[in-house]
Amino acid sequence: MSFSFALDASAHAHLHEQLYHVIRAAILAGKLRPGERLPSMRALALQLNVGRNTVANAFGALASEGYLKTRHGAAAVVTDDLPEEALRLRPSVAQAEVPVSASATASPEISRRGLALLGAPMPFVRGIRGFAFRLGTPALDAFPTTAWERILRRRWSCSSARLLGDVDRCGYAPLREAIADYLSVARGLPTHSDRVIIVAGAQQAFTIVAQLLLDPGDAVWVEDPGYSGSLCAILAAGGVPVPMPVDDRGARLDAALQRAPNARLAVVTPANQFPLGVTMSDALRRDLVAWAPRADAWILEDDYDGEFRYTGTPVPALASLSPERVVYAGTFSKVLSPSLRLGYLVVPDALVDAVAATKAIVANHTAIFEQAVVCDFITSGQFQRHVRRMRVLYGERRESREDAARAELGGVATLRPIQAGIHAILDIDGDADLLASRAATAGIHATPLSAFAVEGRPPDALVLGFAAVPPAEQRRALRALAGLPGAAGGAR
Amino acid sequence: MSFSFALDASAHAHLHEQLYHVIRAAILAGKLRPGERLPSMRALALQLNVGRNTVANAFGALASEGYLKTRHGAAAVVTDDLPEEALRLRPSVAQAEVPVSASATASPEISRRGLALLGAPMPFVRGIRGFAFRLGTPALDAFPTTAWERILRRRWSCSSARLLGDVDRCGYAPLREAIADYLSVARGLPTHSDRVIIVAGAQQAFTIVAQLLLDPGDAVWVEDPGYSGSLCAILAAGGVPVPMPVDDRGARLDAALQRAPNARLAVVTPANQFPLGVTMSDALRRDLVAWAPRADAWILEDDYDGEFRYTGTPVPALASLSPERVVYAGTFSKVLSPSLRLGYLVVPDALVDAVAATKAIVANHTAIFEQAVVCDFITSGQFQRHVRRMRVLYGERRESREDAARAELGGVATLRPIQAGIHAILDIDGDADLLASRAATAGIHATPLSAFAVEGRPPDALVLGFAAVPPAEQRRALRALAGLPGAAGGAR
Repeated sequence: MSFSFALDASAHAHLHEQLYHVIRAAILAGKLRPGERLPSMRALALQLNVGRNTVANAFGALASEGYLKTRHGAAAVVTDDLPEEALRLRPSVAQAEVPVSASATASPEISRRGLALLGAPMPFVRGIRGFAFRLGTPALDAFPTTAWERILRRRWSCSSARLLGDVDRCGYAPLREAIADYLSVARGLPTHSDRVIIVAGAQQAFTIVAQLLLDPGDAVWVEDPGYSGSLCAILAAGGVPVPMPVDDRGARLDAALQRAPNARLAVVTPANQFPLGVTMSDALRRDLVAWAPRADAWILEDDYDGEFRYTGTPVPALASLSPERVVYAGTFSKVLSPSLRLGYLVVPDALVDAVAATKAIVANHTAIFEQAVVCDFITSGQFQRHVRRMRVLYGERRESREDAARAELGGVATLRPIQAGIHAILDIDGDADLLASRAATAGIHATPLSAFAVEGRPPDALVLGFAAVPPAEQRRALRALAGLPGAAGGAR
Repeated sequence: MSFSFALDASAHAHLHEQLYHVIRAAILAGKLRPGERLPSMRALALQLNVGRNTVANAFGALASEGYLKTRHGAAAVVTDDLPEEALRLRPSVAQAEVPVSASATASPEISRRGLALLGAPMPFVRGIRGFAFRLGTPALDAFPTTAWERILRRRWSCSSARLLGDVDRCGYAPLREAIADYLSVARGLPTHSDRVIIVAGAQQAFTIVAQLLLDPGDAVWVEDPGYSGSLCAILAAGGVPVPMPVDDRGARLDAALQRAPNARLAVVTPANQFPLGVTMSDALRRDLVAWAPRADAWILEDDYDGEFRYTGTPVPALASLSPERVVYAGTFSKVLSPSLRLGYLVVPDALVDAVAATKAIVANHTAIFEQAVVCDFITSGQFQRHVRRMRVLYGERRESREDAARAELGGVATLRPIQAGIHAILDIDGDADLLASRAATAGIHATPLSAFAVEGRPPDALVLGFAAVPPAEQRRALRALAGLPGAAGGAR
């Protein structure tokens, strides 16, 4: 499935995507009900005055995402088991009319881009209390609360007056320096603090980079499967994703190179591919940084959990190979807490002021107190100690999870071993999407691998975060997962 | 001058803007040096194969912004006195080539949108230590540090574990409720907390609204002069600003209605027009909310300092007149501190989920601790007391400033009286832009009114923030301003 915004209404190639968004919006809005039949492809093609392939493409995409069931020779029907997030959307939001018509894309109230944003596959954390198996969540039970509070109090009493007035759009200067020092040691990325720009989390970083570097219609290489947060930022900027299939050496450039040699940007997770957990091979790393200057393109390195590696050699940041072509995005979400909303970009010299200007427009400066506290946490050495402690803890939780998986899941599902990071893939003998939505009902976060598919069709699997989950709770939650209908490939 | 992004390269009407951006970028990058002559309009028109008017329009815009000096019959030259922010940009950023050519707009490295973002008039705080007369800054010397610290510590010790895991993209639920209650009383805006969405400051709110509601090319009514932050968010989304000239009744709809009756959005500051400080008349308020449903348009109410009114009747939020058409943006920057980076949107029911989805793509959730602290600050009643105290304090600073202005400025400059807000207009008998850049050198923030011009040519004046400045410092800074060359309309 390919995503694109229909910003250019004259481009015939985009019609199937417009149609995809209209139908999806209608389903989300409840205007097309579960079980409802759609017109035949031929009838719809005639009605909309488009080719039958256009309709077939849109239907195919909707079916692959679980919105429609299509059967050869029969009319497509809206599926009974909508993804959970779909059910959260209110009828009043989507403006598409039923029966669908092409003119519905030019809704008078929400823009075409707005409709597309609504349909974009942005992940969000559902209202489930437990942490098993929420993605992107570190061990909050091991958060250094006491040390943190000490710093917080000292900071507040000694420098609140000065900090309250600090609105530097590039971030708190001492934190920028601390990050530059840290990256040199921890990620093999020597850099100057001038090139470090503090952002309110990685998602904001993606938005800034996409808005600055892309014009609508620009091709962007993305990993397939890949992180949907950066994908959504690209889509919002009008970028056209060109998938790089991921194999056991990492994201394969060759396919993308053939389809879009002159892409403007490549977005990669080289240290620990999200979600598959592959480390990009040296050869692919070299190929990628060699391609960028040839194509006059940029690379965005999303180094979301590069701190956590359990076996093998640590991999330095890709940006260290090509500091003038790679924009590096780091985050404190995985090493401290996502609720801090603190991350940073390390940008090529040529982009420093442009990124600062774009950040000002997207969001202005970044909240200051957490910046000062994180800064003290790093400069006092506590941050590095915390990272080391967490590496050990996650290594333990990784092992206990693998034991629990063997014990609880038997032949039903198989946990892939991991070398790095704080999530793992659980291969399912059954329908992963269905199981995921049943898990949500049972109070367990389970994200289907398909949620991160761009164009390819990944195997049935769940992506599970484990760092936040102590061993006993992991075991309980895995047992609950295994007991859900669908886990054994059985009853639906 | 009119701004627009040249997203649609086929639209001939946009060529002068492309040219404007290329030349501006070249000046910012130092590729066109101060004093350097440009080719004649005729030569450039021939070279680029465009009409002479296209070049004349671009030159006119650049001259009106102070980048070029044009004289009838002579070649245009790059001005000696560039705006200060221009000088901060590094040569390496802008990719435009000199001599300028149309193809430079398709720079291989930064997108056309990126170039336009670089040229956009986003204000930012310069590296000046003092607060005289920084815009948008409340009395940080009167910040309730003790009460704040007490809440911060209690919050941290009693609920840090739960808060660390809170990543609700709509914001901390109890804060949303507290804001809903507060707005009902303080801004005459009864609403449900479901419609309150927490954002990391007003600029992020503008970005979300613009990205959701606008497609490139959509007309947007904006106040002229008006706030450049919201203007930049509109430009970044590809919106085309249509100016509403501001007179003593507020932003005049009639001009915009004639030029773009079917705009998709109107952005207004009804309680205290920024920067002119006019309160929108009841008649204009009624006209505006009556127009929106007719045009199927939305209204964005930027209520940036609606809490502070010194004389006359308090004005309820415009959103109270039309809660289903007005998106209300509020901020804690002016009542607490801009470094908190905390604001909120109150959105029509029909947009709640769409705004939440867009927020997730733009920035994900918002940092949690300040949300919890502000929540306690409101629910304990301390927030409301702080606002009342500040209203008294700012009333006093307003009066002492007016006294100081009479004493220090004599006939050189005249301070316009204000009824609300935390800034004032100082009319200058001389070149306000020049004086502003000299003031910056002297360590005084002084923003020329022209920085907020969209199309009109405002009188020579400075926009001065005063809330953060105690009386003695106000007096000193005003005296320093009056002593600068240029203040008396004299020596340059």
